[in-house]
Order: sequence, then C-alpha cells, then structure tokens
Amino acid sequence: MTMTRNPQLDQHGALKHLLSIEGLPRDVLVNILDTARPFVGVTEREVKKVPVLRGKSVFNLFFENSTRTRTTFEIAAKRLSADVINLNINASSASKGESLLDTISNLSAMDADMFVVRHSQSGAPFLIASHVREGISVINAGDGRHQHPTQALLDMYTIRHYKQSFTGLTVVIVGDVLHSRVARSQIHALSILGVPEIRVVGPKTLVPDSLGRMGVRVFNRMEEALTGVDVVSMLRLQNERMDGGLLPSAQEYYKSYGLTAERLALAKPDAIVLHPGPMNRGVEIESSVADGSQSVILPQVTFGIAVRMAVMSILGVG
Amino acid sequence: MTMTRNPQLDQHGALKHLLSIEGLPRDVLVNILDTARPFVGVTEREVKKVPVLRGKSVFNLFFENSTRTRTTFEIAAKRLSADVINLNINASSASKGESLLDTISNLSAMDADMFVVRHSQSGAPFLIASHVREGISVINAGDGRHQHPTQALLDMYTIRHYKQSFTGLTVVIVGDVLHSRVARSQIHALSILGVPEIRVVGPKTLVPDSLGRMGVRVFNRMEEALTGVDVVSMLRLQNERMDGGLLPSAQEYYKSYGLTAERLALAKPDAIVLHPGPMNRGVEIESSVADGSQSVILPQVTFGIAVRMAVMSILGVG
Amino acid sequence: MTMTRNPQLDQHGALKHLLSIEGLPRDVLVNILDTARPFVGVTEREVKKVPVLRGKSVFNLFFENSTRTRTTFEIAAKRLSADVINLNINASSASKGESLLDTISNLSAMDADMFVVRHSQSGAPFLIASHVREGISVINAGDGRHQHPTQALLDMYTIRHYKQSFTGLTVVIVGDVLHSRVARSQIHALSILGVPEIRVVGPKTLVPDSLGRMGVRVFNRMEEALTGVDVVSMLRLQNERMDGGLLPSAQEYYKSYGLTAERLALAKPDAIVLHPGPMNRGVEIESSVADGSQSVILPQVTFGIAVRMAVMSILGVG
Repeated sequence: MTMTRNPQLDQHGALKHLLSIEGLPRDVLVNILDTARPFVGVTEREVKKVPVLRGKSVFNLFFENSTRTRTTFEIAAKRLSADVINLNINASSASKGESLLDTISNLSAMDADMFVVRHSQSGAPFLIASHVREGISVINAGDGRHQHPTQALLDMYTIRHYKQSFTGLTVVIVGDVLHSRVARSQIHALSILGVPEIRVVGPKTLVPDSLGRMGVRVFNRMEEALTGVDVVSMLRLQNERMDGGLLPSAQEYYKSYGLTAERLALAKPDAIVLHPGPMNRGVEIESSVADGSQSVILPQVTFGIAVRMAVMSILGVG
Repeated sequence: MTMTRNPQLDQHGALKHLLSIEGLPRDVLVNILDTARPFVGVTEREVKKVPVLRGKSVFNLFFENSTRTRTTFEIAAKRLSADVINLNINASSASKGESLLDTISNLSAMDADMFVVRHSQSGAPFLIASHVREGISVINAGDGRHQHPTQALLDMYTIRHYKQSFTGLTVVIVGDVLHSRVARSQIHALSILGVPEIRVVGPKTLVPDSLGRMGVRVFNRMEEALTGVDVVSMLRLQNERMDGGLLPSAQEYYKSYGLTAERLALAKPDAIVLHPGPMNRGVEIESSVADGSQSVILPQVTFGIAVRMAVMSILGVG
Repeated sequence: MTMTRNPQLDQHGALKHLLSIEGLPRDVLVNILDTARPFVGVTEREVKKVPVLRGKSVFNLFFENSTRTRTTFEIAAKRLSADVINLNINASSASKGESLLDTISNLSAMDADMFVVRHSQSGAPFLIASHVREGISVINAGDGRHQHPTQALLDMYTIRHYKQSFTGLTVVIVGDVLHSRVARSQIHALSILGVPEIRVVGPKTLVPDSLGRMGVRVFNRMEEALTGVDVVSMLRLQNERMDGGLLPSAQEYYKSYGLTAERLALAKPDAIVLHPGPMNRGVEIESSVADGSQSVILPQVTFGIAVRMAVMSILGVG
C-alpha cells in the first residue's frame, strides 16, 4: 500500500522486524500493546510458560553490554518456550577480525529465528535486518543514540494502563533528550499514538531549541515544563556527559532538573512518573518520588516483559 | 509459635527463605534432608527432570564469582524444570551505580520466583529477603564470612548417609574456622541435629579459644583433635590468609594441620573425610587421603545437587 | 575385534567418545554422516526440537574461549532437548588452583552425561575421557594443534552432500597445514573415507615436505595444487604466525596463496570451496570467492549443527 517501503514491514504491512518506532503505523503499535495484555497475566500464573515459540532459536546479540536489558529479553523468550542463546560479541569473533555481516551470516546459517541486537552504533540493527534471510526477525534492543523501541513500547503500555487513552494527555520528557535513544523512541511513539502535547525539558546543551523540529515543545525551566502534565518521563543521566563538560555536576543538575516532590506537585494530581532505569537517586530523581505513590517505575519493568513477549510472539509466528 | 520471629520462617514455621542455618528448627533441617533423598535417585535416572518448578524463574545472582557453586544451583534448578537466569552482577548495574535494592526491586518486578544470592558482604541475602515481595524466596549461596547454608546441609546429608544418625558422633572441623562461612554453618547444623561433640582445630590465629563460645571444643594440635572422631571436615585454606601474615606458608601449614594418612589413622577406622572443594592437595590434605577409601568428597558433590533441589522444591511450592 | 583398543570405542566397536578422527573405522564415520542427515531437516522445521537427550546434562567446558564453536554445540544440544551448562573455565576453578582432573571429577559427580571440551593443550580431551566414569561421553571441540573432529565431520558431510561419494575425488587443503587441528582431522577423515588424492599446499614453513608421511601430496605452488581439484578446503590464517616470523605479511601471503577467482578457475568447473571460519577476507580468500557460487561456506555451518546433533545423539543413547 505504502509507496516508500518501511524495512520493518512486509508487503502486507505486517511487522517483520522491530527496528525503530519511527514510521510504524498506529495500528501496529496498538496491536503490540493489545497482544501484551494477556501476557501480563501469564507472568503472574503459577506456570509462566506458553508454547508460542517452542523450538524457535532466539539469539541475544549484545555487542554492547547490558545485563539488564538482555535479562528482560531472555526471560520473555523463555516464557514463550524459545531456546535462548546469549552471545556477548565483544570477546568473540569481533576480536578475531570477523566482520559484523559475516558473524550474522554464520548465525543465520545455524537456523536462527530471531536476533535481539544491542549495538553501540546507530543503525546496526537495520544493517543486520537488511542482511538476514527471509524468515529471520531482528529486534533492536538499543542502537547508539538512535532508537530503543521496546523501551518506548513498554512506556506506552504503562501510560495506557494508567491513563486508558493517549488522546487527551500532556507528557513531558525530562533530561538529556538530545543523546537519548529512549527519548527519541518515546517521542515517535507518543506522536503516532496521538498524544496532543509532548514536552521536553533540560539544559540547553542537552535540550536545544532545534528539538522543536520533532514536533515537541521545548522547555529549559523544569517548573514550567511540569505544570499541568499527566505523565512525567524521566531519562537516565549518563555520567559520561558530565565528564565531557556538557553538564556542570550532578548536584547542579539536580538543583535545576531533579524531580523533587515539590516540583512534581506542579503536575496534575494524578500524574504518573516513569523512569527507564537504572535510576540515579538524588541526581535525576528524589528518592521519595522514585518510591512514591505516583511512581510507576516498577510496573514498567513488569509490563516490559509482557511487551517483549508480545513483540517476539508477533514476529515469531508472523 | 515462636516469640522472636526468624525471617526465614513464615507464621506457620514453614521455610520461606534459606539464609542461615542458625535458628532453624531441627525438623526443618530434617525435612530438607528427607526431601533430598529421592532426588538423589532423580539424578541417576535416564531422564533427570522432574516438573516441580516448571514455569518458575530462578535467578542466580552472583555478586561474587563462583562458577562451581553457581553451576550446582543451575543444575538443580534445571532438573526441577525451572527457567534459570544467570546474572553476574559485577559487570552490570553495579557499575552503573544502581543500588543493590533497586536491582532487586527490578528483578522482582520481572516476576522472579527465587533468588540464589552469592555476595561478598555478610548479611546481603538477609537484606534482600527483607525487601522482596511476598512469594519470592531467597537462598543464601554464601555471604562473606557469615553463612553458606546449602553447603552445611549437603555435609549433613553426607554424614547421615554414611553414619545414619547424628546423636553418637564426634565431628572435627579442621582449618580456618574463624573466617569460614562453611564452618560457621556446619557448627550450627551439627548442634541443631544433636551431634554431642563438635571439635575445631587449627592455628591459634585462625581457631582462637573464643570459638568455644559457639559450643565447640577448641584444639590447636591436630593429632589430639583427630583422635577418635567419626567425621573429619576439612576447610579450604584461603591463600589470601597467608599473604595477610596470619599464616606462615603452605608448607608450614601442611606440616602442622595437613590431613595425612598417618594422622587420619588416629580417627576411628570408619571415619569419613569431607571437604567442600576445591581442594589444595598437599596443603590442607594429602592426595592419597583425598582419593582414599575414607574420602566422601565426590559423594558430597552428588548429594549437593539433591540437597539444593530439595531446598528449591520446598521453597518453590511452599 | 581390534587388537589395539581405541579409547573412543567400546568393546563392541561403538563410539563412546569423539576425541580424534584418527583411528576411527570407516563405518563409524559413515554412521555419523548418515545420522546427521535427518537432523538437517529438523533444523528447518517449525519446531526444531527432538527429545533424544531430554533430561541429559551436557557441559560445555571451554578452557579456551570460542563463542562460535561453543554456540554450535549449545544449539545442537538444546535442539536435542538436553540441559546445557556453559562453563568458561579460565575465570573459575583454574584460578583457584584446582587441577583439571579434580574439576572433571567434580562435574562428573554432578551427574553430567556429556562433556564438550575445548582446550589449548593437545590431548586434554583424551586425559579427561580416560578419567570420567563409565557412561559419560567426551567430545573434543578442538585441542591445541591436535584435532577438531566435529569440524572435519561437517566438512565430510558437506563434501558428500555436493559430491555424493568420496572415492573419485581430488581434495586440496590450503594454508597453515602444519599447525592446524582442522587440517589434521580433515586429512584423517578424507583418508578413511577413501579419497584417492589429498593435496596440501602452502609456504614451506607451514607445509613442509615431511607432511608427505601423512599420505598427502605436498605442494608449495598454489596454481599447481589447485589444478583439476574437486574440493578446495581453505584454512584460517592465524595472525599469530605472522607475528612469529613464520610468514612475511598478510599481503605477501595473499599474493601467493590467497584463493582468488582467477586461481579457482584452475580447479574443476564444479569444484566447491570450504572454509571453517571465521574468514580473513583478502588474506586467505578473495571476497568474491567467499560469496561466490562455488562457496559452500554457509552450508557448512548449517550442516555443522546437524553433525553435532548426530554425534551427541549417537553418544547420548549409546
């Protein structure tokens, strides 16, 4: 139907890879969220396994270390009864000088069904997806500063769970929006799902005015940005940025952009607080807020398993 | 029933975590040993799996590296049909500055059923157990110098297997009793199970008289301590102690406290020799004794799988 | 039947370990290839699992890092429904000073059924096989410069797949034959299966005339060696050799021994090209040849899974 083909979709518009939220039709996103719903139930049952991916081989290809994200995909795949192979590629063939694409060709020849790819270089999962043979699916588990689509999807699931619908919401994303793959993916997802007002806030070095081109309202004062919002989505502060001189210090940052109980009071009374973790308590968020009644940070983790099960099952049986 | 609540037991006195041998009622220990018995059979069958923990998620949280111990828990969990997730936490979130309790909250939110925890800090598994939500069990797989309860339980299983009962035995523990979590757990277990005479022996720096407060007889001469015993439980000598000046050298140590065939002859003729492994042959034990007819060191390993299956199945269905 | 017992065979001549191709009867090799055939089908089915090793515990003991080889065995074992335990021994007990045989005794006592062993020292898998108790099988996954039998078997499977029979073939092995466990295993397998002409080619330092004693024709000019062959088996060039002064440089090597399209034209028109991977494109092989129509390098990987499944199933039910 579409004239310019999205490499994530097959000719009938069905998802065949999950590489980026950008360019995905609304109904594809909604379908993932709807599919995730019963999987929240699965993880609470006595026997958490469903046979959806029995006999399928899922490869966790982590070219960049992330035990946390790798674990969520590993659990999701195992609860779908898949065989999971974890590959930390730093120490392996990479050191023997094999190219990325030769590595992928080899693993494909082992009859892989799905690759979950984390890579420090933006676009690596796209390159891999363009290279694998028909029938193998690629899931982007975070590539450079580019995208982290399953994180955005679990955020959307969480927002829908607490707010029912997207169409009346004001959402603010707080922190290093410029360098964050989480923020980039969230902005796309919120737009596609019809959130009328998306705000971003942070210091000018990390949230420049040019971000306005993404269809968001840019703020540099935290108090202003929080006023009247339904959802506060905190980003993790990368310590590397502070070393690089883009930020003065953790204390300075907290003074201006830390989410304190006092500042949160400017949002709507029923506003929810999201954070992708791991949190820097006392840097981007006050401890009492992280553990407070408006925090939905732990439910995000639970929904994250269900959303990854949904993505894998849609791709795996597709 | 009890006035002071043991955090390992629920209100009915049933085991909900295994953190320490200290304070466990005798019938809880005996129940674990009895439950382990048929699992020794399981590991010898053609198909070694039983469906006791099917669909349960067991997390091996190793904050301190121990491939050997991790492997025994991994095998035990897989033979109970659980899904096992291995997490080596050093390289992970810890380096991203996340607190221990935030890590645990996150993993709990992934619908974990059981945490097997190894940590260099004494008490860490207690902290974790006090933090997890109802329904998640914590097993201490060794914390600092404090406890290593499953090691003590497999030792008890081994002793009961070869000696039938505990009530007539003399048991000696040889080595660095002061710093050993294995020794500490053994002493508690032997006391609870009714062993009338528990001896400890080693150099004064590692086996000070003050250990007498634990209800054991303290010896500093090996020959004296071995005389007439039914069970010799060797401890592993930590090389770090020698660097620290607490011990002269491996040769010196062996001369005074190495278990030679000659010394073992002082024990009862049917005395058995235990060692938690890995052994330093020629340092704490003579090679011919390690491989000799009185050694039950390899059966300990076999029973160790069964005992860990027993603990996991009691906690998992509890 | 045989007077000198091969430690790989039981008294009835059945395979009980796979340590080396050398000395295996032809019918044992053919049986492995025949058994592998239906497993190629398995890996292409929707549900790739067969219950052949259900409840069996397979230990991947990698004393030398090789993610690639370890992965192929892990997949093969999981598709046979075995429980797989991966042990990277460098970081573990080895550092605690435990001997290789104590490590093996311990793992055996955990009721292991099969050890897949990779070790930098030639002969280590033989030592292990001589030490394990009856009923445990050992598979050599590469030992020093000695043998890599499953690699040779997958090469044989690939050759038979494309050439139907071995008895009319001319096969050339190109590269560092002297130091290669792959070459050594291939030469034995090709001889046993009746290949009438086995050639080896490379610089005199890596392919000395003395190799003629293995029953092969030794060449030092690539063009001569390639002329009229049915199968070209490339070896991976170890960069370490160049550092050691045995070779001038990658460029020099490529000039004399690189498999270019031009040189390949000297072989029979339907000649096939094998490489065990990972490839050094532009060093031992031209990229267009690696990806060309005569290359069977990726089918080798696919067949490799099936061949490893065959070996494991023969050993596991034997």
